[in-house]
Amino acid sequence: MQTLLFNLPTKIIMGNNCIQEHADVFKLGKKALIVTGHHSAKNNGSQADVETVLKKHNIDYALFDEVNSNPDIPTVYKGAEFAKKEQADFIIAIGGGSPMDAAKAIALLACQDIKEENLFSGQYDDKVLPMIHIPTTSGTGSEVTQYSILSNDNAKTKTTIATPLIFPAYALLDARYQENLPLTITVNTALDALSHNIESFLSLKINSLISQITQSGIKQIGDCFTALENNNITAEIREKLMYSSLMGGIAIAHTGTNIVHSLGYSLTYFRHIDHGRANALTIAEYLEFIAKNNPDKVKIILNCMNLPDVAAFKAKLTALLGEQEHFSLEELQSYTKIALKAKNINTSLTCPTKDDVLNLYKQSLI
Amino acid sequence: MQTLLFNLPTKIIMGNNCIQEHADVFKLGKKALIVTGHHSAKNNGSQADVETVLKKHNIDYALFDEVNSNPDIPTVYKGAEFAKKEQADFIIAIGGGSPMDAAKAIALLACQDIKEENLFSGQYDDKVLPMIHIPTTSGTGSEVTQYSILSNDNAKTKTTIATPLIFPAYALLDARYQENLPLTITVNTALDALSHNIESFLSLKINSLISQITQSGIKQIGDCFTALENNNITAEIREKLMYSSLMGGIAIAHTGTNIVHSLGYSLTYFRHIDHGRANALTIAEYLEFIAKNNPDKVKIILNCMNLPDVAAFKAKLTALLGEQEHFSLEELQSYTKIALKAKNINTSLTCPTKDDVLNLYKQSLI
Repeated sequence: MQTLLFNLPTKIIMGNNCIQEHADVFKLGKKALIVTGHHSAKNNGSQADVETVLKKHNIDYALFDEVNSNPDIPTVYKGAEFAKKEQADFIIAIGGGSPMDAAKAIALLACQDIKEENLFSGQYDDKVLPMIHIPTTSGTGSEVTQYSILSNDNAKTKTTIATPLIFPAYALLDARYQENLPLTITVNTALDALSHNIESFLSLKINSLISQITQSGIKQIGDCFTALENNNITAEIREKLMYSSLMGGIAIAHTGTNIVHSLGYSLTYFRHIDHGRANALTIAEYLEFIAKNNPDKVKIILNCMNLPDVAAFKAKLTALLGEQEHFSLEELQSYTKIALKAKNINTSLTCPTKDDVLNLYKQSLI
Repeated sequence: MQTLLFNLPTKIIMGNNCIQEHADVFKLGKKALIVTGHHSAKNNGSQADVETVLKKHNIDYALFDEVNSNPDIPTVYKGAEFAKKEQADFIIAIGGGSPMDAAKAIALLACQDIKEENLFSGQYDDKVLPMIHIPTTSGTGSEVTQYSILSNDNAKTKTTIATPLIFPAYALLDARYQENLPLTITVNTALDALSHNIESFLSLKINSLISQITQSGIKQIGDCFTALENNNITAEIREKLMYSSLMGGIAIAHTGTNIVHSLGYSLTYFRHIDHGRANALTIAEYLEFIAKNNPDKVKIILNCMNLPDVAAFKAKLTALLGEQEHFSLEELQSYTKIALKAKNINTSLTCPTKDDVLNLYKQSLI
């Protein structure tokens, strides 16, 4: 039989007021380092809620709020130096994928000296600061994964630290922090969650349990498409999106992503297209590509979303994406070379050739 | 929104030869205590496979193979004394629910002095021997739960130790050890797994993720009913049963069981009816009871099993159970009093009155 592996050491607590109602979770040490971006955690109330709980428990804290989108290597080394200087016992990450991914690298680098050339080696000591992750977007699923994805200027792409050491101890998910999240971010992160669930479902590494989890994630995000199109994003829709993102995170923690993410990284690195949007730009053609050999699997995805065929799936995406970016053949040829080097490209049910990758790019982006 | 909690610290590895292929898992210490029953682990090859792996890694071990069905309190104290005497660093449980549940209590008692009157208190120090669980039946799901259920002669029923401390570190599931499991045990344990998934799905504590997991468990066990009836139990059926049992275990780790288990304990304690069979004797009437207030939920269960109504569900069970035991009204009145005291009886979607419990017993068992 196919081997079933399941490993999710992160304790998940999702619900309104979960920070307040599970305040004991924060008793992980005497001093916390809050890792976040410049503004959003202050604006959506999450940082204030965390600070209130920390003060209530007399837990000291320092704030590192310098994480930009697509965090780079200098930022995480800087954060780690700050964690050491402040003698933080644990880390609280608040934000989208960028602060969460940066926090994981900081948690690792705060406890061990790793040279930059070894940062992605996978060879680490068994020492890391424990972490609480509080996602304030619904896309990355980083709160339940062992991945920290950083912009890597040497490789001119995004590179991943992958180690079970950096699974957060706790993921606390409260959809209320997303009430005022702008539509564009809501849509782009939702599309990232969709691509996590779909790529995982179409991965060679899928197993029965993860398959259920991804289908559940795809169904719930499918329920949100009309609301996203109409910018009618209720609290219930926010919860569904948060759930889908969580399912996608659990899924990719077990299977990784594959072709769509491999193709997307260059779109973000060279053209600064948002990560979720970058995935969405090629995912319909990816489904067509997989359907050639595995039509039944693609049919299951479409059924989860109540869509009759890939054309209908593409139409739904087009409505959400609006005017799409275009690329020259030269750009796409260059991206193809980079995508083929990505670790995750060969874990899809169908392994793409160089021509397949270029065709996926061309059909999606010219 | 409904709070979603998920906590499963046990690493799961399921597949043929998983003991051999993941032998590094056993490096949890210098000396292991193998906890098992008298015969089955020797007959099905699992104990020999474990011993081979331990010898390969030069890990010493001692054997405690005195666990009977429905293990009692003296057995686990005896096992803990043996673990201390042998200075075991970790425990390997091999067998069905009885050895696994006994192993959990032994792991706890080997590290801390707990008086018998405090054994079920839930108040323990943070010390326990780490455990690897290797289930060789497909019913209990104990390999992924924080429960140790022991026969309690003082309370004249089964009583549960429940603490996250006793989640096994690893669950290794290889269906090949069940190749020669007798039909009666196969059926009874499958019915236990079915009741775990169904009771969890109908629990007040259910959440979206656990709901998916239980539906997946119910579906796969539903696929096995005809094979169980016809005693045509292939390797593929064994895998499906093992998967269903695993899903049921993950589910009850989050929701607990409820009415059916509360009703079943007395049938086992006083009339020595196998645990899984005891559950199956009342589960059809339980579905009728729940359907009064929650017909849609019961419909989902029936759909998972491709059954049109509860009558068809009952007919399927009757075919598997064969001639059923009968009870006097006096017996059932006495059991009703005991069932009403069970902690888990009030977590079902509909909370039963005393009359409801007696009626469930009467409709099922007179």
